[in-house]
Amino acid sequence: MARAAGVSQPAVSRAFNPKASITKEKRDRVLAAARELGYVPNVFASSLSKRSSKMVAVISGNLNNPFYSESLQVFVENFQRTSRQVLAFSVQDQQSSDEVMMEALRYPVDGIVMTSAKVTSEMVKLSEGLGIPVVMFNRSVPGTGLATVQCDNRAGGAALARRMAAAGARSFLVLRGDPQGSTSQERVAGFRDTLAALGRLDLEEIEGGSNYSGGYAAIMSRFNRPAPDWPDAIFAVNDIMAIGCADALRGNFGLRIPEDILLAGFDGIREGQRHPYRLTTVRQPIERMVSETLDILDQPDGGESSLRLIPGDLIPGTTVKARGEFL
Amino acid sequence: MARAAGVSQPAVSRAFNPKASITKEKRDRVLAAARELGYVPNVFASSLSKRSSKMVAVISGNLNNPFYSESLQVFVENFQRTSRQVLAFSVQDQQSSDEVMMEALRYPVDGIVMTSAKVTSEMVKLSEGLGIPVVMFNRSVPGTGLATVQCDNRAGGAALARRMAAAGARSFLVLRGDPQGSTSQERVAGFRDTLAALGRLDLEEIEGGSNYSGGYAAIMSRFNRPAPDWPDAIFAVNDIMAIGCADALRGNFGLRIPEDILLAGFDGIREGQRHPYRLTTVRQPIERMVSETLDILDQPDGGESSLRLIPGDLIPGTTVKARGEFL
Repeated sequence: MARAAGVSQPAVSRAFNPKASITKEKRDRVLAAARELGYVPNVFASSLSKRSSKMVAVISGNLNNPFYSESLQVFVENFQRTSRQVLAFSVQDQQSSDEVMMEALRYPVDGIVMTSAKVTSEMVKLSEGLGIPVVMFNRSVPGTGLATVQCDNRAGGAALARRMAAAGARSFLVLRGDPQGSTSQERVAGFRDTLAALGRLDLEEIEGGSNYSGGYAAIMSRFNRPAPDWPDAIFAVNDIMAIGCADALRGNFGLRIPEDILLAGFDGIREGQRHPYRLTTVRQPIERMVSETLDILDQPDGGESSLRLIPGDLIPGTTVKARGEFL
Repeated sequence: MARAAGVSQPAVSRAFNPKASITKEKRDRVLAAARELGYVPNVFASSLSKRSSKMVAVISGNLNNPFYSESLQVFVENFQRTSRQVLAFSVQDQQSSDEVMMEALRYPVDGIVMTSAKVTSEMVKLSEGLGIPVVMFNRSVPGTGLATVQCDNRAGGAALARRMAAAGARSFLVLRGDPQGSTSQERVAGFRDTLAALGRLDLEEIEGGSNYSGGYAAIMSRFNRPAPDWPDAIFAVNDIMAIGCADALRGNFGLRIPEDILLAGFDGIREGQRHPYRLTTVRQPIERMVSETLDILDQPDGGESSLRLIPGDLIPGTTVKARGEFL
């Protein structure tokens, strides 16, 4: 290879390392020789001794929820920076997470990041047996001992409840997310318990389907009737549902937010902070959560059982305000 | 393995095939044995004879542009359905596509889908030499002979120009995208040529940076002055820029769309069709574009040089209307 290109051995390595310094002319010569010989350094071959494929499986929920696509973008950027790559999986509606995880285990991955849904303890044992670390991202599965990186969902739900109560709300509606997911359960529990402690017991919970159209449809089916009994405040457990909810409230019922009804979401996705919404919400610190996940994967013992609970950031936004603040 | 689990050889295969029919009890027994032995069928090993890794590299632009995350979701769904997987790359702002493609070539991928930016002919030759088919998705690189799947950008730009002219617009502003990208160039050319043929020559073009904040900032820096000279109509060459543009027009200048100014985008992303925007735009038929891409990758000769030009769908929306239609 070096001979064919008429360069030194180290120059060949440098030519294939996008970050290495090498003249364009030399790199071109190496590439031409590589083309001739059909040769490119294969990461699997070069890392065989280290038993590392430089690939990490990331199993996401539907990427049409911006929280997942924003997280995936940060994962791809961070892995690429360390010369690793994301093997992308997504859990389809009709699929179980176990099925997708089994598919992922068939590739020689260095680790699995699970950002969606839950896995059974059988799958956890299988991955352990194979020596493949698994990190739950924004999910926890109690009793499995899986390494988990999570925003403090309970504290976030509690903070939003306090804010709504302080703004004078006395009746509340909660749009729940995935009924099986720990994330939704914890946010709702934090919200509910805090209101109960404040003596605000007028709380109704309905399913919101975890996506835009689910949030929209939940509002339509609950209130599309004569003289609907509007609550003072609505908490959608994720931003994309809150956005669907806001569009239904304004577009179909002509309600103003926050003048007629208060609204909060959770996640802090970009779209929720744009001009039409400016949601009151809790931002998940995705950058920090991703770097904690990488840190766990880099530990020699792989995904040691640990829970890294990271506080979210309350974003005041404009959708929860006391009457005096906007009158 | 079969012996350890006390099942037949075919039962072992079925246990690892998420789609195969097998009793839960049998599968559990096989999984327990696999865990014991640290064994899982590796796709690379089982497909070595076919020289297929069952992985396809998808090189995307930033996933915070919903066009890329929506496309990636469709790629992941479609590949997963055929037991293949997406190795996800994204081109960072400061990176060249060549660099990322070289990184992708280091993995044993069955093909490369390039949804962003352009590659040099040197890289094309290298991938050809390696026998790895490359498909350009929503991009073309003239002169490389690369297989290309593309929405008819020129016809789409032309359709939007006709619609704006028919609505009575006489002065136009274009927010361009990636100056190096064929996509933006073709949309602008279709728009410009059609207006010229209609005798509408009052056309200004500025850079919009291809993302939300670029669209927002372009409007601010162009018009944040006393008595700004507003055009009748603005064409942002992608929806995410059009959304940034709409937020700036309404949020900062109090303009109404379409009453005070007409606006069109391109792509047909979900966010652009929600209540606050309902953009007049051209939808790229992502599902069909992805299945054409898979079809090319499945051809025995790999990415034979072909151009598949697919018409986009004009979405009337509410942001381009003739005065009579909203007065």
